[in-house]
Amino acid sequence: MTTPKYLTGDAAAIDEFIDRFDVFLLDCDGVIWSGDHVFEGVVETLEYLRSRGKKTVFVTNNSTKSRQEYLKKFTGLGIPSDVEEIFGSAYSASIYISRILKLTPPKNKVFVIGEAGIEQELRSENVPFIGGTDPAFRRDITSEDFKGLADGSLLDPEVGCVLVGLDFHINYLKLSYALQYLRRGAVFLATNVDSTFPMSHGFFPGAGSMSMPLMYSTGQKPVALGKPSQAMMDAIEGKFQFDRERTCMVGDRLDTDIKFGIEGKLGGTLAVLTGVSQKEHWEAADAVAVPAFYVDKLSDIGLVARANKQ
Amino acid sequence: MTTPKYLTGDAAAIDEFIDRFDVFLLDCDGVIWSGDHVFEGVVETLEYLRSRGKKTVFVTNNSTKSRQEYLKKFTGLGIPSDVEEIFGSAYSASIYISRILKLTPPKNKVFVIGEAGIEQELRSENVPFIGGTDPAFRRDITSEDFKGLADGSLLDPEVGCVLVGLDFHINYLKLSYALQYLRRGAVFLATNVDSTFPMSHGFFPGAGSMSMPLMYSTGQKPVALGKPSQAMMDAIEGKFQFDRERTCMVGDRLDTDIKFGIEGKLGGTLAVLTGVSQKEHWEAADAVAVPAFYVDKLSDIGLVARANKQ
Repeated sequence: MTTPKYLTGDAAAIDEFIDRFDVFLLDCDGVIWSGDHVFEGVVETLEYLRSRGKKTVFVTNNSTKSRQEYLKKFTGLGIPSDVEEIFGSAYSASIYISRILKLTPPKNKVFVIGEAGIEQELRSENVPFIGGTDPAFRRDITSEDFKGLADGSLLDPEVGCVLVGLDFHINYLKLSYALQYLRRGAVFLATNVDSTFPMSHGFFPGAGSMSMPLMYSTGQKPVALGKPSQAMMDAIEGKFQFDRERTCMVGDRLDTDIKFGIEGKLGGTLAVLTGVSQKEHWEAADAVAVPAFYVDKLSDIGLVARANKQ
Repeated sequence: MTTPKYLTGDAAAIDEFIDRFDVFLLDCDGVIWSGDHVFEGVVETLEYLRSRGKKTVFVTNNSTKSRQEYLKKFTGLGIPSDVEEIFGSAYSASIYISRILKLTPPKNKVFVIGEAGIEQELRSENVPFIGGTDPAFRRDITSEDFKGLADGSLLDPEVGCVLVGLDFHINYLKLSYALQYLRRGAVFLATNVDSTFPMSHGFFPGAGSMSMPLMYSTGQKPVALGKPSQAMMDAIEGKFQFDRERTCMVGDRLDTDIKFGIEGKLGGTLAVLTGVSQKEHWEAADAVAVPAFYVDKLSDIGLVARANKQ
């Protein structure tokens, strides 16, 4: 097992590290920000990387926001960015459906469990869908629903895929619809299967908590589009055409970010200690993934910039 | 592996079979009825068993109904019975909490995910609880909820246990409360972990679909009180004091009913073919459990009665 190289405070090593890559794929939560708090020095560090001609791409598993909504968050937090730099699991799932699954009529509709972010990205790829935020599905199940779902009369015969993401309005009716579609052969996709969702400095049920009931009741496993799934890497590559050897994945989680970069055969992975994973996690014998480099915080790689200014 | 003895049509074998037992534990759905349809001859068969001095106990994993509500169903379907003969997983869980867990103040409240049946059984054992059918928990999560749940200010410090059963009003708010209590050390119980719930001749998400998100987000496994868990057998025995050697479990499912009887070291198990499992299931090399006896339908063991009448 290789030992990750520690870059914090080592200007020469940082300079050499930056030179090795053209593209930086950056996780957001735990790297750029925590909730609505941007880490100090991040804005300057991103500007420094861009000033050296590097491409920055923000890669997030959160499916509740579309790229447009992410752009608003970036702008609101004072981080200059472009919608084309943002890659969320909802977008990844939409690209997977439109460009890889290529569902054809009369079986090309998607039944969505999830929030508006998924719907906006499906629309951006012209994928027809039902469910999602439709108020018709935000209610209690009735005895008529039980009958009509069991005999299939309430089901839309055009649904060929069930896409499950984090849904703050999850309910028994939506799970029942999804179960019937899956039992009738619909393709099972998940934007991501994160076990928890970080919010307000606490942990809440993640997107995986929405697909687990369906996995358990059908015995089927979804294709997950978020990190560390390589379906997401393929989707990013399909859009940006980057050289994997000259690309570095930056993240705070070994089990999603770092694993994603290693399995994607990128030229490098950089762990930051401002989020979930800590040094002892990759030093453990059963570490899920070991980064090639690590820093205390993202802004540490801006050291060269600051040194040059002084 | 033993081969199950087929009793249908064999009056002498049936007579001998009935003689071997004093107590019959009977599953309901798929044995006595399917939904609201009572199988033909079941009422007479139960009367016949009782006329031969046998005790009948109805053992069901369905936690949505209390014993009182089950009694109403039995009466409505024309099946004479007594509340003391009925044993559901909600009652089993209540007994487990009050007589085995014995939670003591100030940490003795139960946070419930489930329907009224669980609440009624907890009340019958004087177990304090919150959640359940309380309208305060049947709503969307708000940003105030996220904050108050993350910092703990919304949590009841007296909760020492989370009990999860089938909940037709499951939502993100309830799952979030349960997750916080479990992360703070509450005991994790499930009335049962059935993957599906049979209804209107179809399959819907079962009670296990409610606890799976919590298992996944906490990494913890609940103690399940329904069949095939022996915690349920212990609870039944705690109440009825029967001789296991002279008790037979009757059911339609190998993975719950038959397994429950075998692992409980009962004198016998009888499979009926009016529900989920079929002959090829126990003939398979990887059969989860093999019954000692089987009949096409429960009323087949009433054959002797009918023969004697003629």
